[in-house]
Amino acid sequence: MSGGEFDLIARLVERMPPPGPQMRVASGDDAAVTEPRGTATATTIDTVVEGVHFRLPGFPLEAVGRKALAAALSDLAAMGADPGEAYVSLGAPESLREDELLRVGDGMAEVAAREGVTVAGGDVTRAPALTLTVACVGYERHGTELVTRAGAEPGDVLAVTGELGGAAGGLLVLDGLDDDGALRDRQRAVLTSRQLDPRPRFAAGRALADAGARAMIDLSDGLGADAGHLARASAVRAEIDLGALPLGEGLVGLLGDERKARELAAGGGEDFELLAAIGHERLEEAVTAVEGLGGRLTQVGRVVQGEGVSIRDADGGEVEPRGFDHMRGSPPG
Amino acid sequence: MSGGEFDLIARLVERMPPPGPQMRVASGDDAAVTEPRGTATATTIDTVVEGVHFRLPGFPLEAVGRKALAAALSDLAAMGADPGEAYVSLGAPESLREDELLRVGDGMAEVAAREGVTVAGGDVTRAPALTLTVACVGYERHGTELVTRAGAEPGDVLAVTGELGGAAGGLLVLDGLDDDGALRDRQRAVLTSRQLDPRPRFAAGRALADAGARAMIDLSDGLGADAGHLARASAVRAEIDLGALPLGEGLVGLLGDERKARELAAGGGEDFELLAAIGHERLEEAVTAVEGLGGRLTQVGRVVQGEGVSIRDADGGEVEPRGFDHMRGSPPG
Repeated sequence: MSGGEFDLIARLVERMPPPGPQMRVASGDDAAVTEPRGTATATTIDTVVEGVHFRLPGFPLEAVGRKALAAALSDLAAMGADPGEAYVSLGAPESLREDELLRVGDGMAEVAAREGVTVAGGDVTRAPALTLTVACVGYERHGTELVTRAGAEPGDVLAVTGELGGAAGGLLVLDGLDDDGALRDRQRAVLTSRQLDPRPRFAAGRALADAGARAMIDLSDGLGADAGHLARASAVRAEIDLGALPLGEGLVGLLGDERKARELAAGGGEDFELLAAIGHERLEEAVTAVEGLGGRLTQVGRVVQGEGVSIRDADGGEVEPRGFDHMRGSPPG
Repeated sequence: MSGGEFDLIARLVERMPPPGPQMRVASGDDAAVTEPRGTATATTIDTVVEGVHFRLPGFPLEAVGRKALAAALSDLAAMGADPGEAYVSLGAPESLREDELLRVGDGMAEVAAREGVTVAGGDVTRAPALTLTVACVGYERHGTELVTRAGAEPGDVLAVTGELGGAAGGLLVLDGLDDDGALRDRQRAVLTSRQLDPRPRFAAGRALADAGARAMIDLSDGLGADAGHLARASAVRAEIDLGALPLGEGLVGLLGDERKARELAAGGGEDFELLAAIGHERLEEAVTAVEGLGGRLTQVGRVVQGEGVSIRDADGGEVEPRGFDHMRGSPPG
């Protein structure tokens, strides 16, 4: 560890919210020490790489930090967990100055403070492209059980929180698709904020767990792909109705066509909303719980026997789900 | 997540040792779920990047995986913790084929199996250079307390496990320094294995904790730099005797000069031995405990009032500690 790395770490640490009461030893020792808070812990790790998950310039540096942490936390929200700690590895290219790296830290600190997360450890190293890896730890709440992807049963309803397609639409706006100005400023702002400031749905995740959700997943790869993950883990088939998808505001206007907007909502990904499988008899309770939080829960399909996933339009035609391919490195749209 | 990424993850997962009994949900869900094992958890995150921490070709791919996991685990060993789980993010450049990436996984699986670690989660993404980030979780043993860097007191003895300089010497061998063949094959093998297959010192860390070590740190940046970290955290001064350092076998032969060998042992880093501050009255007990494990514990200095670190030779001359600068990206030597 060099002096420069050391100073940068100190400046990053001082930006973060103060450590939570579960921390016995926070950032700066060989490892951070935590006294367990829940009956079980949920842990996930997630990486974003410049040129693969975002492009510089064009993507605000604060948004890189915000999104990296929010995306990792979203996995915990999808289990109905409480957020706990985050551990962050920052790979810094020589092309970025220290003040630019600190802007990445500012974005991360913003999300950590808002979500009540302690950034308990980290690592800074040189890298050929800006790279952020975030490991997040969440806690099972006493008297509840974490919800996996694996409990869906035939007959269950599939429901999503919020609206879909906004993040993919926001990326298209950032890429200049709306340069003729079809959208109102507010719509443009809503779409781009879905791309640049995604929100882990902790409150909805807990409410859905308490309302008996049998399986949950967060929508990072796109509804089609993620419903497929849930179906595979649960050994069932997911059927999605394209016409039922709740569309992000401005999406139809942006694409100039409702069908295209619906396909983007089905395949675009990165909305970080939750998809839950819920027993039919408890759907109303779940809708009421999520609406009580100021949110929205929409039935988008059902669980049946079989395997795989289908997305059908009103005529029964099959729609090909398209996901964002992080190995190929190409954005959706 | 693409099909290709998905297949690669499945092939990596099947190489890993089976999950430990603490895992309620292992790899493959939104997050891994662990039932807490100890009274507290220690968590650390560490990244290695091609071109910064190792070079391809030249560095065996298995060694990249081994070293990334061992280096992260070493932080837990330095607290006297038991190893628990690892979470791994693999950044894969297009230049590496799948079978090459699997060799990285094989190296990691070898260390995980040997150390009793569950690789409980992971992430694979495209990256411009081979990048491995490992977050590791360890557990405080019942009836003991994790040892931080912060408890050293004036009057304490500073002692190191094992031998120093071997990893830096091994890197020089790999870089061709011994091309005239001054070393015996066995010495060359010992030095390169210190570079390519470092061992987290869990047993020694636990023994030192039980023998009353007041502060510990693992030697990743080099004895000089790491003694400085310990001194800073403990608000004391560390004094190191260059002549007391236990040298890795073959190091003098490799450098052709004992003084150079001692400087490399003081500054080279990556030995992943432990440096402990121990009350004088308990040193003998600690030495006996580490020797009982087949290891070695050597007094290399002392803790005094003040700040910073000094390394002195037999004439009292100050030696400049040199560490491996991960931000600059230059190897030691």
